[in-house]
Amino acid sequence: MAPKKGLLERLDEGVVIGDGGFVFALEKRGYVKAGPWTPEATVEYPEAVRGLHREFLRAGADVMQAFTFYASDDKLSNRGNESSKKYTCRGINDAACRIAREVAEEGDALVAGGLSQTPTYLSGLGKTNTQKEFQRQVDVFVENKVDFLIAEYFEHVEEIEWAIEVCLKSGLPVVASMCIGPEGDLHGVSAGECAVKMAKAGAHVVGINCHFDPFVVLDGMRKMKAALDAEGLKVHLISQPLAFHTPDAHKQGFIDLPEFPFALEPRICTRWDMHKYAREAYDLGIRYIGGCCGYEAYHIRAVAEELAKERGKFPKATEKHEPWADGLKMHTKPWVRARAGREYWENIKPSSGRPFSSSMSKPDNWGVTAGDDILKQKGEKTTEAEIAALKAKRK
Amino acid sequence: MAPKKGLLERLDEGVVIGDGGFVFALEKRGYVKAGPWTPEATVEYPEAVRGLHREFLRAGADVMQAFTFYASDDKLSNRGNESSKKYTCRGINDAACRIAREVAEEGDALVAGGLSQTPTYLSGLGKTNTQKEFQRQVDVFVENKVDFLIAEYFEHVEEIEWAIEVCLKSGLPVVASMCIGPEGDLHGVSAGECAVKMAKAGAHVVGINCHFDPFVVLDGMRKMKAALDAEGLKVHLISQPLAFHTPDAHKQGFIDLPEFPFALEPRICTRWDMHKYAREAYDLGIRYIGGCCGYEAYHIRAVAEELAKERGKFPKATEKHEPWADGLKMHTKPWVRARAGREYWENIKPSSGRPFSSSMSKPDNWGVTAGDDILKQKGEKTTEAEIAALKAKRK
Amino acid sequence: MAPKKGLLERLDEGVVIGDGGFVFALEKRGYVKAGPWTPEATVEYPEAVRGLHREFLRAGADVMQAFTFYASDDKLSNRGNESSKKYTCRGINDAACRIAREVAEEGDALVAGGLSQTPTYLSGLGKTNTQKEFQRQVDVFVENKVDFLIAEYFEHVEEIEWAIEVCLKSGLPVVASMCIGPEGDLHGVSAGECAVKMAKAGAHVVGINCHFDPFVVLDGMRKMKAALDAEGLKVHLISQPLAFHTPDAHKQGFIDLPEFPFALEPRICTRWDMHKYAREAYDLGIRYIGGCCGYEAYHIRAVAEELAKERGKFPKATEKHEPWADGLKMHTKPWVRARAGREYWENIKPSSGRPFSSSMSKPDNWGVTAGDDILKQKGEKTTEAEIAALKAKRK
Amino acid sequence: MAPKKGLLERLDEGVVIGDGGFVFALEKRGYVKAGPWTPEATVEYPEAVRGLHREFLRAGADVMQAFTFYASDDKLSNRGNESSKKYTCRGINDAACRIAREVAEEGDALVAGGLSQTPTYLSGLGKTNTQKEFQRQVDVFVENKVDFLIAEYFEHVEEIEWAIEVCLKSGLPVVASMCIGPEGDLHGVSAGECAVKMAKAGAHVVGINCHFDPFVVLDGMRKMKAALDAEGLKVHLISQPLAFHTPDAHKQGFIDLPEFPFALEPRICTRWDMHKYAREAYDLGIRYIGGCCGYEAYHIRAVAEELAKERGKFPKATEKHEPWADGLKMHTKPWVRARAGREYWENIKPSSGRPFSSSMSKPDNWGVTAGDDILKQKGEKTTEAEIAALKAKRK
Repeated sequence: MAPKKGLLERLDEGVVIGDGGFVFALEKRGYVKAGPWTPEATVEYPEAVRGLHREFLRAGADVMQAFTFYASDDKLSNRGNESSKKYTCRGINDAACRIAREVAEEGDALVAGGLSQTPTYLSGLGKTNTQKEFQRQVDVFVENKVDFLIAEYFEHVEEIEWAIEVCLKSGLPVVASMCIGPEGDLHGVSAGECAVKMAKAGAHVVGINCHFDPFVVLDGMRKMKAALDAEGLKVHLISQPLAFHTPDAHKQGFIDLPEFPFALEPRICTRWDMHKYAREAYDLGIRYIGGCCGYEAYHIRAVAEELAKERGKFPKATEKHEPWADGLKMHTKPWVRARAGREYWENIKPSSGRPFSSSMSKPDNWGVTAGDDILKQKGEKTTEAEIAALKAKRK
Repeated sequence: MAPKKGLLERLDEGVVIGDGGFVFALEKRGYVKAGPWTPEATVEYPEAVRGLHREFLRAGADVMQAFTFYASDDKLSNRGNESSKKYTCRGINDAACRIAREVAEEGDALVAGGLSQTPTYLSGLGKTNTQKEFQRQVDVFVENKVDFLIAEYFEHVEEIEWAIEVCLKSGLPVVASMCIGPEGDLHGVSAGECAVKMAKAGAHVVGINCHFDPFVVLDGMRKMKAALDAEGLKVHLISQPLAFHTPDAHKQGFIDLPEFPFALEPRICTRWDMHKYAREAYDLGIRYIGGCCGYEAYHIRAVAEELAKERGKFPKATEKHEPWADGLKMHTKPWVRARAGREYWENIKPSSGRPFSSSMSKPDNWGVTAGDDILKQKGEKTTEAEIAALKAKRK
Repeated sequence: MAPKKGLLERLDEGVVIGDGGFVFALEKRGYVKAGPWTPEATVEYPEAVRGLHREFLRAGADVMQAFTFYASDDKLSNRGNESSKKYTCRGINDAACRIAREVAEEGDALVAGGLSQTPTYLSGLGKTNTQKEFQRQVDVFVENKVDFLIAEYFEHVEEIEWAIEVCLKSGLPVVASMCIGPEGDLHGVSAGECAVKMAKAGAHVVGINCHFDPFVVLDGMRKMKAALDAEGLKVHLISQPLAFHTPDAHKQGFIDLPEFPFALEPRICTRWDMHKYAREAYDLGIRYIGGCCGYEAYHIRAVAEELAKERGKFPKATEKHEPWADGLKMHTKPWVRARAGREYWENIKPSSGRPFSSSMSKPDNWGVTAGDDILKQKGEKTTEAEIAALKAKRK
Repeated sequence: MAPKKGLLERLDEGVVIGDGGFVFALEKRGYVKAGPWTPEATVEYPEAVRGLHREFLRAGADVMQAFTFYASDDKLSNRGNESSKKYTCRGINDAACRIAREVAEEGDALVAGGLSQTPTYLSGLGKTNTQKEFQRQVDVFVENKVDFLIAEYFEHVEEIEWAIEVCLKSGLPVVASMCIGPEGDLHGVSAGECAVKMAKAGAHVVGINCHFDPFVVLDGMRKMKAALDAEGLKVHLISQPLAFHTPDAHKQGFIDLPEFPFALEPRICTRWDMHKYAREAYDLGIRYIGGCCGYEAYHIRAVAEELAKERGKFPKATEKHEPWADGLKMHTKPWVRARAGREYWENIKPSSGRPFSSSMSKPDNWGVTAGDDILKQKGEKTTEAEIAALKAKRK
C-alpha cells in the first residue's frame, strides 16, 4: 500500500477536514469531567474514545487528533484533580496516540498530537518551565510516530511561540492555532500580529480554534490573512471554531459567557450553519477546516458535504444523510416531506423555544490575564472559602 | 446470582429510570437516517448501538430498550426506504434485542421490546392488518426473552388499545405510552380518557412519551392521573418526554414545528431542566421516569442525580460529574470557579446567542389524521412532483 | 340640526368606535401622575385634555369618554394623593364632562361618563358605601347631560352589578365592561358567567376593557358571547383592550407584569396589530370597538381605517395617513418606498432591538383580591417601612 | 425683565436641554404624514404644534426648535406631496417660528430655526442650488428673530459645510449636527473628521442627531470628541439621538431597518434608558443634550430629572412624576408599590411580549448615496410601476 500523503502535501492540493471536539462530546456521554477537562478516558474508557474517533472519520475528517487536550502534568494535578494520582501524562497521551492511530488506519486519515496552553505559563513560571511541559508531551508524540503536531488553544502569542519552538525540533509539520477572536490575544497583541509571529516562529499552518463561533473566528481569520499577506508570508491557514453561537462574547470568548459550560445548549449550531461556515472558510482561502468544542460528527459531515465537490467525494456518513435534507422525502407526515430541500433549511432562523431567555448575555469580564495572582496554579483542592470569595466578586 | 427484579416489582418499590432517545443521537453520530428513522444500525453498526446503550446504563438507566423504533415491516418499506431490501424486521429486531441484553447484563438493567404506531393504521387498513404488524414484532421479543414490552409513540388511542391486546398475550408486563399532549389524541379523545382506555385495556403502566417537552408532558400526565384517580384505576405511570423545549407546539407536537428535525438545537434542554423535570415527575407520582428524542446520557444522569436520595445511589457516570456543577471548582479561570453550585445553575435562563431568531414558532398545522388520503403509506419512492405539490401547500 | 343618534341606535345600525386611553397618554405628556392615576388635569390643564380628545375625534372615535378615571372621592384621597386637598370629585368630573362635550360637538360624537372600581369595595366596606361613591359620580354625569354611562375597569362582577344598579336609575343607556381575561374575575367567576350577570343586571352593552392585549381580550369576549348566546340574552358587545402585548399576563393582567407601568414600551402594539384586532372584533359580532391604556390616536385611526368600508367613511386623520402605508411612496429613500403596501406591513414581526431582553416575563402573582387586608385603602401617605416590607415580600 | 441668556452663554455655564421629535409624535396624533414628513401642520393645526411645544417646555426643554423639519421648497414638492400646492416654505416656517416663540416666552426657553438636508443635494444639483434652498429658510428665521440656528439631519459632511456657511452669514450662533453613526458619513468621511470639518467651517456647537439610539450616538460622539481634542478645536457638543433602540442598524441608521417607520414600537426607549443616556452624555462633556425622533415629553423629563442636580432645578413636569418611580407608593396594588425606587427600574430588562419576534433585524442595505440616480428628486407622483420595480429589488 502506498504511504499516506502528509499534511502539507494535502493542503497544497486541496482541503483537509479536521475533526470535532472531544471534551464536550465525551462530557455529555459521561467520560470526561467538566472543570478539569482532562483526557484520562483514553486509559479508562478507550472504547468510548475510539467510538468518537470513528464517528468523525465516518463524517469526513482527514485528521484524527489524539485526545490529549490539557494532558500536561501540571494540568493533571491542578486544584484537586484526581487524575494525576492515577495516571501520568505519558500514560494518557500514549493511549491517546494508539487509539487515534488505530482508527486513522481504518481510513485515510492522519494522526496529530496536540499541545495546549499550560497552567505553568499562566502562573508566570517562565519559558524554561513552560517548554519543559511541552517537551514531555512532544516526546510521547514522536515515539508514537504521529504525522504532525498541533499547538492549539493558546491565549497568549508568547506562549505559542515557545510551543512552536519545541515542536519544530521534532522535524514534523507544525500547526499553530490560538483561541483568540478578532480583538487579538489577551496581552493586547492584534490577531494579525499573532499570525505573523506564529508564521515567523516557523509554524507551517496558522489560525484560530475554539472560544468563538464560526463566523467570529472567520472575522479573526480575515485579519490574520490580511496581516500575513501584507508581510508576504506564505503559510497555510486553519480554522477550528466552536459549534456554539457567541455574538456576545468579548475578548476571552465563550468561557466568559454566563452559560459556560453547562447551559450552552441554545447556542448549539445547526448543520446548516456549518454549510455556511465551510463555504466562507474555503472562499477565504482556509484549507484546514475543522471544529472544536461543541462540534459533533454531524457538524463535520456538513462541512464535508458542503465541500464534496471540491474534494471529489462525500463522506461515508452521507450514507445516512441525503444532503440538504432530502431524506425527509421519506417522512410519514406530508408537511415534513414538504421541508425537503436546500431553500427551506438554508433560510431557517430557528426559534429557541425559550420565551424567558434573551438572545444575548453580558459576559463576565474580570480582565485577568497570564501572571495575575488569581490565575496561579494550585495542586491542592480549592477551598469553600475561596469559592465564596469568588462568588462575592461575581456580583 | 439472584434473578433480577422485574419491572412491576421495581415500580412498586421505587423509581425506575428509563433511557434516552436513540434515533436522534445516532442520527447525529451518522448511523441513522432522518426521514425514515429506521434502526437498521443494529445490524450494520452494532458497536455504535452498543456504545449508546452503555452511556445510558452508566448514566443511571434501569432499562435498556431494544432499538427497534419503527422497525415494523411496513415502515421499513415506506416511500423508498432501502432498508427493507437489505434487512427484515425480524433481523433488525433480533439484533436489537441481543445488543440490549448484552449491555443490560453489564449492570442491573432490564430489557424492553418496543412497538410504535404503524403506517398500516395511518393508511386505514384496519385492526387485523395492524395487529399482524404488531404480532410479528412481539414474536421476536418473546423469543429473545425481553423482560417487558412497551407500546409507545402512538397518536391514536384506538391503535394503542389494539397493540396492548397483542402485547398482553405474551404474558409479559405491558407499558403503554402515547405521544400526545394535554390536548389529547389526534381523534379528539382527551388525555384523561386515553389513560383510562389504556388502563382498561390491561396495560400495567400508562403515560406519555415524545412529541412535547418535559413540562408539557407533565401537564398531560396531570390530566391522565386525575382521570385514572377519578375512575379508581390503579396503574403505574410513565413519562418519557422530549429533551427539546416546545411551548409553541400544538396538538401534533414537535413534528409540526418548522425546526423539526434539523434545526432543533436552540431548543435542547439543559441538565438543569432535567433536575426540575425529575423532581416534578416524582412529586406527581410518576415512577417510570425516562426520556425520548433529544435525551442524551447527560440528561438521564441529571434525572438520576436529582433522584439519588430516593434511589439510594448515584449513577456510575457521576464519577465524571460532581452534582450541581461542583467540578467547576477545579476550573483554571476563577470566574468559572465562581459558577460552582446549585443556586447559579438552577436559576439560569440561558441566552440563545441568536439575535435573529424569535423565541417561538408557528407550527405547521395541516390537521390531517389517521385515515386521510395524504397519509397513506407508499412503497415506491416519493416523486419530485409530489414534493412540489406539498411545498405549494405549505405556503 | 337633527339631534344626534343615541348609542343604542348606532349600535343597532353599525359600528361605534371608542376612544383610547387617557391616563397613559397624559402621563407621558406630563399631566397625570402614575401611581394615583387620577384625572385632576381636567381642572389643572384643560387644554391638554381637550387636545387629546381632539386627536381621538380626528382618528374616528364616535365617543368622547369624559376623563374621570378613578375620580371617586375615596380614590382621590388614597395613600397620600394630594389631589383631594385641592380638588373634589365633583369639580374634576364636572370639568371632564364640559371638555368632552365641547370636543364632541366639533364632530358627531357622543359623550360618556365613566365609573371604575373603588378602593371602598376593595377595602371590603360593603354595598352601601360602594354605591354611595358611584352615585356621587353619576349625579355629576346626569347634571352634565352625558349621552350614556360606562361602568368599566371592574375586577369583580359583584361590584359592577352594584354599579349597573346605580347607573340604571339615571335612565341612560349603560355600558358595563370588566378588566378581566379569559380566566374570569378575581373571585373565580368565569368570563361567560360575568357577561351573563352583567346582562341580567340590566346593562345594555357588556364586555371587557383594559388589563390584556387585544387578542387575549377577544379570547375572553368569545367566552362571553358563547355564554350570552347559551342563555339567549340579547345585548350589545364592547371591547376596549390595552395597546400592549400581554401573552404572559395571568389572571390579574398587565398590572402584574414586572414592566408595569414604566417599562412597557417594547410591548406597545403597532397600527397593524389594530387592523387585525378590529377585523377580528367585528367578525366576532362586537359593535362597540375601542381601546384603553396605551391606545393613542393612531391606534384608533387604524381601527377606523380597517372598518372604513363597513362604516362608509374614513376618519378625518386619514388625511395624514394613506391606509396601508401608501404614504411611503413619497419617501426620499427608494428602499423605504418599496415598503409601501399592505402585504409588507401585515406580515411584519417587528424586532425588539433589545438583545438582552426576553420575550416574556413572569408576572408577580400575589394572589390577593378584594377584602384582603393588604388591599385596604389608606388616606395617609405610605411609609418607607411599609414599602420596605413589600419589597422584601417581592423577592 | 432681563433679556434671556443666549445659547453659548448657557452652554458655557452648564447644561442646555433640547426638545424631542415632532414628526413622529405628530404623526401618531394625526397631524403629520409619514413618507413626506413635512410640517404643514404649523399652518393647518397650530394648536397641536403648540401643545407639543408646551409638553417639551414642561418636561424641561430649554430650546423650542421651530417645527420646520424638511420644510424646504424642494422637499415640499417631492414625489406628489400635496403640501406645496397649498403652502409655501415661507408660510410654514413663518408659522413655525411664531408658535415656537409664543411657547418659549411661557418659560425661559430659546427659539431655534432648523435646516435639514435637501433633495437638491441628494439629486446632485450642486452647491449654488443647495445653498439657495438653505438661504430661503434662513431668511425666514432671521426675520422671526430666532435665537440661534441648527443645521441638523445631514448625512454628508459636504452638504452641512455648505449649510454652516449660509447660517454663519446671519450672525447667529450655529449648531451643526449630522445624522451619522460611529461609521461616519455616507461618503466615507469618518465621524471624527466630520466633527473637525464642521468645527473648521465655523459651527459653534457640533454633534449628532437622529438615525441611531442614544448609546450608538454616544459612541459616535466619543469619536468626534477625540478628533476635536486631537486638533485642539474648542467647540461645544450636542447629541440628539433617536428614542428607538438600534443596535442592528448599519451606516444609514434606522431608516434601513425593516420596521421603519410603522413598526418601531418594540424599540421605543424607556425613561430609564434616558437617565442612563443623560448621565453618559454629561460625563462625556456634552452640554447640549436633547432628543430626536421618538422622543416624547417623558423622555426629555427623564433627561432633566437625571441632571436636576447639575442644573439646580427639576422640570415643571416633575410635579406629575416623582423621580425614580416613587409615585408608585400610592398605587392601589401592593406589589406595584413594591416597585417604587431606583434599583428596580435601573436594572429592568423589559420583555417584548412578542414571542414571534427576534431581537434584531437585518437592515436593508442598498448602498446608494447622494448623486445616485435612484435618489433623484421628482415632483410628480411616484408611479405604481416604479413601486413594483422597487419591491422586486427588495427581494
